[in-house]
Amino acid sequence: MTGTAPRINLARLRGDLERLGQIGRNPRTGGIDRLSFSDADMEGRRFVAGLMEAAGLSVSMDGAGNLSGRWEAGSGPVLMLGSHLDSVPDGGMFDGALGVLAALESVRAMREAGFAPARPVEVIATAEEEGRFGGMFGAQALAGQVTREWLETAQDEAGTRLADAMRAQGLDPLAALDAKRPQGSIHAFLELHVEQGPVLEAAGKPVGIVSGISGVFNWTVHLSGEANHSGTTPMEMRRDAFMGLADFAHSIPELIRQHGSAASRVTIGKVVVEPNFPHTVPGAAEFTLVARDMEERVMRALAAGARAHLKAAAARYGLSVSIEETSWLPPSPCHPDVVAAFRRAAGKLGLDAPLMASGAGHDAQVMASVTRAGLLFVPSVGGISHAPQEKTDWADIEAGASLLMHAAMELAA
Amino acid sequence: MTGTAPRINLARLRGDLERLGQIGRNPRTGGIDRLSFSDADMEGRRFVAGLMEAAGLSVSMDGAGNLSGRWEAGSGPVLMLGSHLDSVPDGGMFDGALGVLAALESVRAMREAGFAPARPVEVIATAEEEGRFGGMFGAQALAGQVTREWLETAQDEAGTRLADAMRAQGLDPLAALDAKRPQGSIHAFLELHVEQGPVLEAAGKPVGIVSGISGVFNWTVHLSGEANHSGTTPMEMRRDAFMGLADFAHSIPELIRQHGSAASRVTIGKVVVEPNFPHTVPGAAEFTLVARDMEERVMRALAAGARAHLKAAAARYGLSVSIEETSWLPPSPCHPDVVAAFRRAAGKLGLDAPLMASGAGHDAQVMASVTRAGLLFVPSVGGISHAPQEKTDWADIEAGASLLMHAAMELAA
Repeated sequence: MTGTAPRINLARLRGDLERLGQIGRNPRTGGIDRLSFSDADMEGRRFVAGLMEAAGLSVSMDGAGNLSGRWEAGSGPVLMLGSHLDSVPDGGMFDGALGVLAALESVRAMREAGFAPARPVEVIATAEEEGRFGGMFGAQALAGQVTREWLETAQDEAGTRLADAMRAQGLDPLAALDAKRPQGSIHAFLELHVEQGPVLEAAGKPVGIVSGISGVFNWTVHLSGEANHSGTTPMEMRRDAFMGLADFAHSIPELIRQHGSAASRVTIGKVVVEPNFPHTVPGAAEFTLVARDMEERVMRALAAGARAHLKAAAARYGLSVSIEETSWLPPSPCHPDVVAAFRRAAGKLGLDAPLMASGAGHDAQVMASVTRAGLLFVPSVGGISHAPQEKTDWADIEAGASLLMHAAMELAA
Repeated sequence: MTGTAPRINLARLRGDLERLGQIGRNPRTGGIDRLSFSDADMEGRRFVAGLMEAAGLSVSMDGAGNLSGRWEAGSGPVLMLGSHLDSVPDGGMFDGALGVLAALESVRAMREAGFAPARPVEVIATAEEEGRFGGMFGAQALAGQVTREWLETAQDEAGTRLADAMRAQGLDPLAALDAKRPQGSIHAFLELHVEQGPVLEAAGKPVGIVSGISGVFNWTVHLSGEANHSGTTPMEMRRDAFMGLADFAHSIPELIRQHGSAASRVTIGKVVVEPNFPHTVPGAAEFTLVARDMEERVMRALAAGARAHLKAAAARYGLSVSIEETSWLPPSPCHPDVVAAFRRAAGKLGLDAPLMASGAGHDAQVMASVTRAGLLFVPSVGGISHAPQEKTDWADIEAGASLLMHAAMELAA
């Protein structure tokens, strides 16, 4: 390292974020509409490409739409920093964008301070993370997880095919197959993201080091009883499917006490009652159960416990129960080398950066399959994200970006 | 009384029911479609009018569409026997029809046996009991509860006005105002109906004497919390509206133990969760609560208890709660004189006829406002009604019709 110690220029980073936040902005709500492969998404990519060029990076876009700004330095596998540039409909200005622009600011600050990395450093802005066509598309393409069949069939909710959306932006969909990075070509992947939850704000911490992305299982549960007249059917002769669901839902805190951990999250988010008429005892109830934990062992215990509670509730109300497990994703721990680098950097910067789990998926989770991946969170005011009100205090953004840069310096040295 | 003791001719009654059950029959489902003031409803009325005439009764139809077959005998207020002839869509062949044709069979049997009543006896087939335009219209017209304003504004779900539906059948809607019977002109009203519930079948009883129609209150309850990401929001930081609902629903058995009676029925029939997405903690839950009991004191205790349980559940999950009471109908006891007559007749016939509450509304409930009203139930196989599968064993129909007739003989003597 020569010259002064690199330092994040918050005013410059803020200016970049605010200008990017004008692209795709809904003038009515203030929210961001940069759905993947929309005109606004591509305009955002062009804006960031301009910033990358101005910073002296070699800019390219791969076949999946991932925008890359490469600092050609040193030799060997590249240190990759970044996040995604697309947004959900009416989303916030920090989700994804912060991770890209903080990575760029880190590289600018390092270059300006005369820091000489031992390896190339690449700022990446991934494509289609948010799920218009399924999500994490850009990262999956980098990791070589995208198939030709999927490329040819994926479509959004409106029925627009991914291939058509990409072609409309001048991209060749099948070229996404070439976006795969050679094995061993990525030294590590570091991502900074807004928490999208209330934990850091409540704890009063400026930044969190993610220990891993929790595993999750998704169930669709169907309880089947008998629809009856609510007036003529005595309580003890009912087979009330909703009461069975309520009995089970009521047991969730107990389920977590018995089998879960502090990181467990168990949610009944969707409920459909039939016939859903005030004067009829519900004959059927279908609901979703989404359960998360940081340990697969705990997930298995939660699943077994939930089955037992469901069985007991169904027996109490004379119901039959069927459980469809629609997905089971094991936990995805962040790499201990990267976590250690983040912790050392936090120590150096005097930042109180607790270890925490992520309950949401991020590009880092996909990148973990091909390299050492790490993830930092900065607080979301009110826990709000995917909404125009999404906000992070600028002081926290400075702390998060500084931590990202200092860990990058260690890993690039 | 002269000649032999009157005796229900089950074969004749069954033949009448089966022929009436062909009118409005849906050939695909086997269900009955005789919605009020439809062509099939009027055809059913003409069929029954023919039976009444053949039985020697004076037949007329009042301005509300109520069909009347009067046995001109004795003097003084009339003893009225009957039920309704209209059906729900795709309903059963016994609901209503049984009460009309059993009344007619009772009168035929009495006449044939030479029974000489001290007062006129009238078989009545009421109109629009099932609720196409609100329900109990014929009985309300007899009781003088129909207003001109209502007649001019009532319409069905498809937007067809009652007045137009009546005119299409050659009826003058405003003539329904003249259907009101003079005060004191009805000696008593007796109705036989299918139970539409499982109680008699489960108890193995052929007939039940209804002590009264339970009171009912209807609430729409709104629980308001906060929608959050199911992955990023720790359990203890949630304000999960569905979990509040489940907590309250789980307390319903306890609520009934604390404040209710064996006749209490408490039902959550309709549930709407928002945003109703698997991966989002529910921010709001709206549901209906329908509660019944035979005593208004108990209804009040249930309502107070439910408010307390709701408040506690809302507090546990950090929710706000609003309760809209959409209706409060007090219990409508059957008249003790009629109940006593039914019990004496059951004793005479050696029928084990338990006293029971009705959780559904019937014409007898409206008639109770202007005369001594009583109601008998016969078992519904499987508790099923308002469906093509609706069924009552013929032996039970014979028992119910016999009990009706013998009570009528006592009250007409």
